[in-house]
Amino acid sequence: MAKGIVKPNKFAFAEPPNELVLESGEKLGPITLVYETYGSLNANQDNAILIFHALSGDAHVAGYHSESDKKPGWWDSMVGPGKAFDTDKYFVICANTIGGCQGSTGPASINPKTGKPYALDFPVITVSDMVKAQTYLLDHLGIKKVFATTGGSLGGMAALQFAVDYPERVANVIPIATTARLSAQNIAFNEVGRRAIIHDPNWNNGNYYDKTPPNNGLALARMIGHITYLSDETMHKKFGRELKGEKQFETGFDAQFQVENYLRYKGFSFTQRFDANSYLYITKAADLFDLTDGHKSLAQAFKKCKDTRFLVISFTSDWLFPSYQSFEIVNAIKANRLHVSYKEIESTYGHDAFLLEVEEQTKTIKNFLAAGENA
Amino acid sequence: MAKGIVKPNKFAFAEPPNELVLESGEKLGPITLVYETYGSLNANQDNAILIFHALSGDAHVAGYHSESDKKPGWWDSMVGPGKAFDTDKYFVICANTIGGCQGSTGPASINPKTGKPYALDFPVITVSDMVKAQTYLLDHLGIKKVFATTGGSLGGMAALQFAVDYPERVANVIPIATTARLSAQNIAFNEVGRRAIIHDPNWNNGNYYDKTPPNNGLALARMIGHITYLSDETMHKKFGRELKGEKQFETGFDAQFQVENYLRYKGFSFTQRFDANSYLYITKAADLFDLTDGHKSLAQAFKKCKDTRFLVISFTSDWLFPSYQSFEIVNAIKANRLHVSYKEIESTYGHDAFLLEVEEQTKTIKNFLAAGENA
Repeated sequence: MAKGIVKPNKFAFAEPPNELVLESGEKLGPITLVYETYGSLNANQDNAILIFHALSGDAHVAGYHSESDKKPGWWDSMVGPGKAFDTDKYFVICANTIGGCQGSTGPASINPKTGKPYALDFPVITVSDMVKAQTYLLDHLGIKKVFATTGGSLGGMAALQFAVDYPERVANVIPIATTARLSAQNIAFNEVGRRAIIHDPNWNNGNYYDKTPPNNGLALARMIGHITYLSDETMHKKFGRELKGEKQFETGFDAQFQVENYLRYKGFSFTQRFDANSYLYITKAADLFDLTDGHKSLAQAFKKCKDTRFLVISFTSDWLFPSYQSFEIVNAIKANRLHVSYKEIESTYGHDAFLLEVEEQTKTIKNFLAAGENA
Repeated sequence: MAKGIVKPNKFAFAEPPNELVLESGEKLGPITLVYETYGSLNANQDNAILIFHALSGDAHVAGYHSESDKKPGWWDSMVGPGKAFDTDKYFVICANTIGGCQGSTGPASINPKTGKPYALDFPVITVSDMVKAQTYLLDHLGIKKVFATTGGSLGGMAALQFAVDYPERVANVIPIATTARLSAQNIAFNEVGRRAIIHDPNWNNGNYYDKTPPNNGLALARMIGHITYLSDETMHKKFGRELKGEKQFETGFDAQFQVENYLRYKGFSFTQRFDANSYLYITKAADLFDLTDGHKSLAQAFKKCKDTRFLVISFTSDWLFPSYQSFEIVNAIKANRLHVSYKEIESTYGHDAFLLEVEEQTKTIKNFLAAGENA
C-alpha cells in the first residue's frame, strides 16, 4: 500500500457494578479506550509492543487515517515497517489514556449517573490508573505478556509504572526522556498551566461543555508547556530575535517577535484539539507520579522486575527531564542487578528530542529489542 | 546608628515642552524619578555608583525606611558600610525606572493630557530610555561621571546600555547575571506572562486603575517568572515533592504540593506591590533590549568605551541568563582590547544567585573596584 492506513478501535469495559477501582479508592465505569494497532499479533501472542503517549498525545501513533490524511501519527518516524518499532515484526498497540480527550473516557465524557459530562466529577486519576486500564485492553486482545513497552515523557512514566505494577506482563521496557518521579520544577510548570485554565472565566469550575471553553487559559498552558519542550538553543536557532514585521515600538502588546507569534499559534491550535479539563487531570496525574509510592525506595520498586530488561534513553539538552533523572532510574534498576542499558543521546532539541532524534533512537532501540528476542 | 535609615527622594524633570525624547521618537514628560542615595558624594564628585534594579525591583536597594521597618532594601547584603558596594567609600544611587510603579513615572501615573492614568497611552520604553532618564538625575546630582554602574538581570542590561550610550560617563561597569540581548526563550517566557495579564478580564485593555486590577493574571506572570529565577536544584532542595497536607487525591485542583503553595503565595503577594501594566511595559523593554541596535556588531557597540573597565559576573546554575551569554559580552569587549574581567560563580541558586551569593560577589567586586581606584 502507498500509505499505512490505520483505523481506531474502541474497547468498552468496567461496566457497573464492575467499575475500575482507582488508586484513590474511587470507581470509574463504564470505560471506553480508543486504541490503534499496527502489524499482526503472532501465534504465540508474544510480539506485542505497548506504547504510551505523552500529555497531549493520542492513540494515533503512526500511519494515516485515510489516503487523503496529510499528517501521520505522532511517532510515525519510529513506528512502522522497518522502523525502530518494526511493525513487520511486532504488533504495536497504542491507546488514548483514561482522563484524555481523544476518544477514551475522560472529564468530557458523559457521567452515567447524571447524563451530563463529568467535568470535575471525574475522579482524580494516576499514572497507575492509566496503566491499569490498559491491562484490560491487553486481556481483551489476548495478550498475557507484552514483548516491550515504551513511551516518552508521561508515556515513559507509564512504561515504568507498567513494569513496576505488572512485572510478569512485560519483557522489555524503554522509558524515554522521563523520570521516576516528577520534580518540583515540573510540578511548578504544571501548576502554572492549571492556574491559567482555572483563572479563565470560561472555565466555570469545569462546566463549559455546552458553552465557550476556556481557550485562553488552555492556550496559555500550552504556550508554557511548549517553552519547556524546546531547548534554549533550538529556540535561538529557530527564532532568535527575528521580528514578525517591521515596527519596533508598538503599544498594545501584539506579537512582535516570531517566537511570540509561534507560541500564540501553537497555543491556539492546541485548543482546537484538546480539552482543558483533561489538561488539568493529566498534569495532576503526572504531578502525583512517584514510582517509589508503596515501596521503601526507588530500588525496591523494581524488585519484582526479575525477568525484565530495561533501556533508558535521555537527551543532553532536555532540561524538563534532565539526564540525571534517568541516571536515578538506571541506578535503581542496577541496585537489583537487573539488565539495564542506558543511552544519553546528544541532541539540541530539548525535551522534544524523543519525537525528533529518530536515527540514534532507532539504532539503540533496534539493538536492544534484537538482543531481547534472543534473551 | 543601629539601622541604616534611608529616605526616598523625588526628582522631577522633562516638563513640557522639554519632554524626554524616547527611542521610539515619542515624548514623555513630566517625569518623576524616585531615588535613594547612600553614603556621601565626595568633593571631586567621582565616587558615585549607579545601581539599576531588576524587573520587580525599586529604588530601595539597601537599608531601612524606618526604625520599625522589618525588611531591608533588595540588595542590602551587597550595599552598605564595608559591603561590596561600600557606602563608607562610595555614594550609591538607585532610582526606580521609568515605566515602573514604585514612585517613578509609569503607566499608572497621571497623563497630563487627560488627567487620567496613562494605562496603554504610556509610550513603549526601552532600556536605553530607562538609562537616558537617569542621566538627568545624575546631572541634577552634579555627577558628570560615575565611578561605577552595576545591576543584575534587567539591571545588568541597563548597566551595559549606560556604558554603551554614555561611555564618557562611567569608569567601571559590572553587569551581573545578564545578557547583551534577550534570548528567544526569555522573550517567550515574558510573552506568556504578558498573555496571562492581558487575558485576565480585569485587565480591561489596561484601564483598571479605578477598578479591580488583573491580579490573577499578574500573579500568574509572577509565578512563571519565579520558576525561571530558581534552579531545578534549588526547587528540589527547597520543596522536593513535599505535600502541603495529607490528602493525595483531591479534585478541585487546590495547591497540593508545597511548591504550588509557595508559587501561589509569591504570585499573590506580588500583586500587592506591583502594577500589571508596568509588568507589560518593562518586560517589553527587556524583549526589545539588544546592545547591537544601532551598531554593526556587539563588539562595535563597545567601541567607544575606551576608558571603561568591565567586570562581568554570571552563575553556573542560572538558566535564564546562562554563562554563555556573559561570554558573549566578554568576547565583544575583548575584541576592542578593553579591560574586562569575568567571573563565573559556582552556585545552585539559579538566576536569583545575584541576590544570594554575597560572599563570592563581594570578594570579586571589591577587588575589581579597588583596582579601579588605582587605575
